[in-house]
Amino acid sequence: MLTIANRNFHSRLLLGTGKYPDYSIQKQAVDVSEAEILTFSVRRMNIFEADQPNFLETIDTDQYTLLPNTAGAKTAEEAVRTARLAKASGLCDMIKVEVIGDQRTLLPDPIETLKASEILLEKGFIVLPYTSDDVMLAKRLQDLGVHAIMPGASPIGSGQGIINPLNLQFIIEQSTVPVIVDAGIGSPTDAAQAMEIGADGVLLNTAVSQAEDPVKMARAMKLSIEGGRLGYEAGRIPKKTYATASSPTEGMSIG
Amino acid sequence: MLTIANRNFHSRLLLGTGKYPDYSIQKQAVDVSEAEILTFSVRRMNIFEADQPNFLETIDTDQYTLLPNTAGAKTAEEAVRTARLAKASGLCDMIKVEVIGDQRTLLPDPIETLKASEILLEKGFIVLPYTSDDVMLAKRLQDLGVHAIMPGASPIGSGQGIINPLNLQFIIEQSTVPVIVDAGIGSPTDAAQAMEIGADGVLLNTAVSQAEDPVKMARAMKLSIEGGRLGYEAGRIPKKTYATASSPTEGMSIG
Amino acid sequence: MLTIANRNFHSRLLLGTGKYPDYSIQKQAVDVSEAEILTFSVRRMNIFEADQPNFLETIDTDQYTLLPNTAGAKTAEEAVRTARLAKASGLCDMIKVEVIGDQRTLLPDPIETLKASEILLEKGFIVLPYTSDDVMLAKRLQDLGVHAIMPGASPIGSGQGIINPLNLQFIIEQSTVPVIVDAGIGSPTDAAQAMEIGADGVLLNTAVSQAEDPVKMARAMKLSIEGGRLGYEAGRIPKKTYATASSPTEGMSIG
Amino acid sequence: MLTIANRNFHSRLLLGTGKYPDYSIQKQAVDVSEAEILTFSVRRMNIFEADQPNFLETIDTDQYTLLPNTAGAKTAEEAVRTARLAKASGLCDMIKVEVIGDQRTLLPDPIETLKASEILLEKGFIVLPYTSDDVMLAKRLQDLGVHAIMPGASPIGSGQGIINPLNLQFIIEQSTVPVIVDAGIGSPTDAAQAMEIGADGVLLNTAVSQAEDPVKMARAMKLSIEGGRLGYEAGRIPKKTYATASSPTEGMSIG
Repeated sequence: MLTIANRNFHSRLLLGTGKYPDYSIQKQAVDVSEAEILTFSVRRMNIFEADQPNFLETIDTDQYTLLPNTAGAKTAEEAVRTARLAKASGLCDMIKVEVIGDQRTLLPDPIETLKASEILLEKGFIVLPYTSDDVMLAKRLQDLGVHAIMPGASPIGSGQGIINPLNLQFIIEQSTVPVIVDAGIGSPTDAAQAMEIGADGVLLNTAVSQAEDPVKMARAMKLSIEGGRLGYEAGRIPKKTYATASSPTEGMSIG
Repeated sequence: MLTIANRNFHSRLLLGTGKYPDYSIQKQAVDVSEAEILTFSVRRMNIFEADQPNFLETIDTDQYTLLPNTAGAKTAEEAVRTARLAKASGLCDMIKVEVIGDQRTLLPDPIETLKASEILLEKGFIVLPYTSDDVMLAKRLQDLGVHAIMPGASPIGSGQGIINPLNLQFIIEQSTVPVIVDAGIGSPTDAAQAMEIGADGVLLNTAVSQAEDPVKMARAMKLSIEGGRLGYEAGRIPKKTYATASSPTEGMSIG
Repeated sequence: MLTIANRNFHSRLLLGTGKYPDYSIQKQAVDVSEAEILTFSVRRMNIFEADQPNFLETIDTDQYTLLPNTAGAKTAEEAVRTARLAKASGLCDMIKVEVIGDQRTLLPDPIETLKASEILLEKGFIVLPYTSDDVMLAKRLQDLGVHAIMPGASPIGSGQGIINPLNLQFIIEQSTVPVIVDAGIGSPTDAAQAMEIGADGVLLNTAVSQAEDPVKMARAMKLSIEGGRLGYEAGRIPKKTYATASSPTEGMSIG
Repeated sequence: MLTIANRNFHSRLLLGTGKYPDYSIQKQAVDVSEAEILTFSVRRMNIFEADQPNFLETIDTDQYTLLPNTAGAKTAEEAVRTARLAKASGLCDMIKVEVIGDQRTLLPDPIETLKASEILLEKGFIVLPYTSDDVMLAKRLQDLGVHAIMPGASPIGSGQGIINPLNLQFIIEQSTVPVIVDAGIGSPTDAAQAMEIGADGVLLNTAVSQAEDPVKMARAMKLSIEGGRLGYEAGRIPKKTYATASSPTEGMSIG
């Protein structure tokens, strides 16, 4: 059970809604993923562009918790403005704070992310900041009172998976709120690894929407996240340099 | 569907039966794993030691395909003798050839493994050799006519996972028979990775039987192997050095 | 040639002076390392404790550039106070800003590091901040005008080497000042890797002072840093999945 | 000191002579590398093609020990024939046995390598087989009496470096003859790593000859191999998960 700000979710997979080949595939992928939290860019709500297809019309907002993000914001001010727009829709009070510091790496700006999170917390938002895997920055965000920490595994859309499992481990060890690994997950193996390290959830988008078969990949992610979580709970064997027999190698004479 | 020597299996997990805390946990773990092929050391059949508990009495041999292994053999001759003992039981005609060259690393002896496989194929066995990840050795075994190749990921019971994914990839690319990653798998992430590389199955034992909660770990492995396989089939996104936005970052003015 | 704030150094190795078995070994290690910049904790200057052995008495301050660090500081204020103490000695105007956010991981606090760097730059110090490998934070420090960026490879004294080469690459690509990899280097291989990624220098301490033979390790580091740097300049071959013959495999008939 | 069959060498770098841009660069690279053993394909000796440039004319055969290889051989028989041709030249009695099993991966055929090694040992050659990193195969070769073991780090010319350091460690631990890491080394970091694992030497070719600046890369390799070896001898610090201060963080009050 994943609990964010007193809301409970059975699924530990948060699914992004961008860049699917078409709406039908998006809908099927969302279905089989069994995700309960869907993320999307506020910029895609098209609140003020009524003539364009609206993402929200395709989603049953009773069934899903919406987690809009502030993608496109380069400053805290822009992120706050975007978050308020999202809330004004009446559809959501959670916000994924995403303030990008560099267009090539899409890595988050730590200072503006802190600022935006502080302001939005004051305004009563449920705040889930996308952050780097900087351990002390995650601590700072947690001290502000954010409702989850969302460290990146590697650059957004890069599919490189978890580059620094140690930092994720440190963030998870110190965290008093859920840690959701966000950005860079490329495959079911990556998602399972995040869960085995002890993450409370995984947020991914491109790995599913841009897979050759997004619907099948959505199911793959669901299964591997469940498998990784169970593996974490089950307590894995320690790693050893040398071998240990699983079958007896001594003592029974045969023939 | 995993097909070995014209027999079809829904599950791609082959589960070892050694070193569980007790028979009840072993049975539950086997159940939830949904494995259809169970491996065990012929030395544990206790055919000639009727007073000791017999592993085979605890297993429904109608439901499961038994894959005895020749653990304990140090030469081809010993492996062949052990295999014949197993077949004489009338319970199985498959054999996992396991000829260990060194007790510290439990790595297989390539020459004796080749020899034993050749002899057992001549005698009509269905032969699945445990081998290192040596690519050319796997080719040699395949050329002999073995029914599956079972390369190790890392030393038996070490839990180190897949050390050389490139060799596994090469073995899978060249292989005309199923490739089942055997030995060294420590966690659901490792199992998912084996499947993503394109393995046809995963054989594991210690990772489940020696986990803190073997039953939960058995389920974790089942899920992650399914997830990894689906991920392989779904076609993952390529890895990129730099980032790629999943949300539009340009062009929509907000406010 | 490494240039920091218009000063040129032949050596790209910055050596820490802490935790050597004794002064004699420290001196020999410093000698064979051919380091020109030596780091030490201001707390070890013992300026006000004249009865205790003073590190600075063992070092020829004409020959070496001293880089005191603010180890022990938990806030910008403490770091600034420590830096001013160091400068008051008249022996140095460079300062390695080190503000630790957590005693277990010894990872730097990003906000206090930024603050301390800003204040010390205003006061005319040559400022080299120890920072995490957060790319955007490194950018922020650079924008302040620091004279070098010193990202950690992994936790101080952990010997884990470079966990996230991608972040180091990004920091180096964006940087307009020298990037000196600091903290976590455990072996000559790690040091060579830092240089191959394109770092301008490597700062290390424990890897030498706590090696079984610190003097030999000092020489090992000197050589591997030179080797890694030359390798970077020489332009390595690309990595390929498949093989490429170095010897002709076709066309010449023999016998 | 590297000792092969009672001959001593100061350098632990064995350098290949193939694929340099031109003879002048080859000569300079050989010079600065300070290698004492040079490898080349017997096929390039052009013994019977007197009208073509001969590699051996460019090398001072008094100064260097020549290590011809049997590149191009696909069977033991071909390798033996090639080795005998080389010996007939009167220039060398060492032979690098190289029997390739697959043209795409250029990985060695274990059975033919064993066979060729056995025959050549009987004929009095000093035999250095190129082998995979299969630990038990290396043991088999050693038991035959070969004079060094040359396991590949990764496919020839791939520049992927050491994929399986554990297998190299096992081979080195068990070996009674020198272990020379051969094939796949791409950069000074890779070479340093091989030495730190405890290899007695490194053989490389493409990493130098196809670098953008082969002469500079030759020097880089020389330095990093020396650095890696010294690091091995100096006894590196253990790796730790958490941090350890190199400067005192407690106890001295300042100001």
